[in-house]
Amino acid sequence: MRDVAVIGVGMTKWGELWEKSLRTIFTETALLALDDAGVDTIDSMVVGCMSSGLFVGQEHLGSLLSDYLGKNPAPAARVESACSSGGLALRQGFIEVASGLSDVVLVGGVEKMTDVTGCEATYALGTAADQEYEGYHGLTFPALYAMMAVAHMHKYGTTREQLAQVAVKNHLNGSKNPLAQFPFKVSMEAVLSSVLVADPLRILDCSPITDGAAALVLCSLETARKRKKPFVRIVGSGQASDTIALSSRKDFCWIESTQIAAQKALSMAGRKVEDIQLFEVHDCFTIAEIMITEALGLVKKGRGGKAVEDGLTAIGGKFPVNPSGGLKAKGHPVGATGVAQAIEVVKQLRGEAGERQVKGAKRGLTQNMGGTGGSSVVHIFEAD
Amino acid sequence: MRDVAVIGVGMTKWGELWEKSLRTIFTETALLALDDAGVDTIDSMVVGCMSSGLFVGQEHLGSLLSDYLGKNPAPAARVESACSSGGLALRQGFIEVASGLSDVVLVGGVEKMTDVTGCEATYALGTAADQEYEGYHGLTFPALYAMMAVAHMHKYGTTREQLAQVAVKNHLNGSKNPLAQFPFKVSMEAVLSSVLVADPLRILDCSPITDGAAALVLCSLETARKRKKPFVRIVGSGQASDTIALSSRKDFCWIESTQIAAQKALSMAGRKVEDIQLFEVHDCFTIAEIMITEALGLVKKGRGGKAVEDGLTAIGGKFPVNPSGGLKAKGHPVGATGVAQAIEVVKQLRGEAGERQVKGAKRGLTQNMGGTGGSSVVHIFEAD
Repeated sequence: MRDVAVIGVGMTKWGELWEKSLRTIFTETALLALDDAGVDTIDSMVVGCMSSGLFVGQEHLGSLLSDYLGKNPAPAARVESACSSGGLALRQGFIEVASGLSDVVLVGGVEKMTDVTGCEATYALGTAADQEYEGYHGLTFPALYAMMAVAHMHKYGTTREQLAQVAVKNHLNGSKNPLAQFPFKVSMEAVLSSVLVADPLRILDCSPITDGAAALVLCSLETARKRKKPFVRIVGSGQASDTIALSSRKDFCWIESTQIAAQKALSMAGRKVEDIQLFEVHDCFTIAEIMITEALGLVKKGRGGKAVEDGLTAIGGKFPVNPSGGLKAKGHPVGATGVAQAIEVVKQLRGEAGERQVKGAKRGLTQNMGGTGGSSVVHIFEAD
Repeated sequence: MRDVAVIGVGMTKWGELWEKSLRTIFTETALLALDDAGVDTIDSMVVGCMSSGLFVGQEHLGSLLSDYLGKNPAPAARVESACSSGGLALRQGFIEVASGLSDVVLVGGVEKMTDVTGCEATYALGTAADQEYEGYHGLTFPALYAMMAVAHMHKYGTTREQLAQVAVKNHLNGSKNPLAQFPFKVSMEAVLSSVLVADPLRILDCSPITDGAAALVLCSLETARKRKKPFVRIVGSGQASDTIALSSRKDFCWIESTQIAAQKALSMAGRKVEDIQLFEVHDCFTIAEIMITEALGLVKKGRGGKAVEDGLTAIGGKFPVNPSGGLKAKGHPVGATGVAQAIEVVKQLRGEAGERQVKGAKRGLTQNMGGTGGSSVVHIFEAD
């Protein structure tokens, strides 16, 4: 396998982008990434998108987006793994460059979620769960994560305030990210008094519905080295599956797919989690971030709540988690999220993260997750 | 890049499978492929599916199908390129094995299309076209291909009878395929008098709505050689994109993405089209097969109608096309089609195609296409 580098990143402001269609959002973002890389010709593109069929009535995204970006006849693939579709796109692009088949690959992620009603969006997102069992019984994702939160609180004594602290931390980070959908701080009191969605989760425990896209340009290390601009290497990639239904898991408090994917990525990189200085993880709900910090091995099982309370995962802490603001503040256009996580890590490793810069960061990790952890994708990046 | 082999194939009877769900159809098929390969452990799986979101309200197929097949925590990806989703899955699996990241990869395709009404199915399939332009104006796929047929008839003098001959030939082949949805012959008269769908295309010019799945087991050539069973090599893979909207094409009669994908695959294989003895191509409508035979270079531009009329593409002709019965008779579960094409080629090259065996076949080609040719994927296989 060849070594792979990221030579360009592109992202526009996320939010409720009613004046722009899916193809426009993607194309603007992809052009920024190509411009950042100083590249015009690509060998191939891979786009992550969860459910453009249900959100905007459009499949065949590879053809559509290659067409609108002006890159025909380049091969274009769309990949899907629910909310980890972006991470999967990155992995497929990584494999394609590593294989030697392609030298320059554009990796993108996109989701246009606000063209439908809230009910329709909840239905579309629910297709990441087991429709014949979980969907049939009326379970939505806030309900599923609420059950995980209740289990974690019961088993480990995690508190309502510790959940809220995840939102407070990530909004503080997000307030320094101009591209975030909600770039403002929230107080502990605001989280605790926000409207109840699925007990114990309140609206400020939940990531939002977002329109957005993100794009990266990958190439072989050899090609990256011929250029004068700084770049970042992808040194590890891991992916794993778990049961799609939460009810089939041995332990509601443990995200095994993340633990296994991280183990694979670390093993490929020849690193331990202690060697990594920043983490972009899938905080679709506050409880998710707590469970992910445990699955990644940043803290012991059951200690994720205490870790955020103690500031371990804040910028300036031992393991800064979600310096970008995470899904919580930055927004969560589901197909784009995994790609945007990589963008944050690349910007941090290039020292371009402004007010939210993690000082001296040499390595970063992204963790992107589908459903309640039915799939996880982890990547490790290193400054060259 | 490492060399890649196909060591197992699996397919069940296609049709209106109302008693089985998507997960069941896929799992039965995947187990057959694993059994054929004599393999239990896989490193990864890739599944092609066009629109499970719209057809059965289920995304996150990687997690679902890995779960039901009992292959967790193996990484599982779902890929989509409209009706060429199966071909794309094969290509992604090929790249993954070629890269060295995985040694044994299960490649599958699946679509469950009959759980919705005909109108809903037409809408779901229509998401392969440009929704903002073609969809907005009410264009469906029969209408789009009807325009291509009219253009071809006008430009090259292709006749109504030549279109019908594609259906007659493919149903004759399909009558020898027990897994086909419609394993029976149709007469020229039956095609010409069948109900009109979109002038000049009649119902027997159109591939059907089908439930079905197909699966392959890929591995490295090195691993394949260690076994005692015969196997088939994948010697070429090509993919290309074109405009998603038919109206943006320079020539309505020319499928450029197929021509380019074939050129890439042949170049990788170091072969010419004359070196290949059988072709499984994307005859979603009779006119499509005629145009594909031209784009592949089996005949000159505009001569595809004459070729089928003269028997050039029949079993026993110079270039046998769709010995399996094609999409026309075998059925067209859109995500599975590209994988099933590969199964037919593998069976032919292993000499296991029974009554429809193309004698002495050493090499075969598959051509899978999305929309009106917005994407094409071509693979070339060789008996070891």
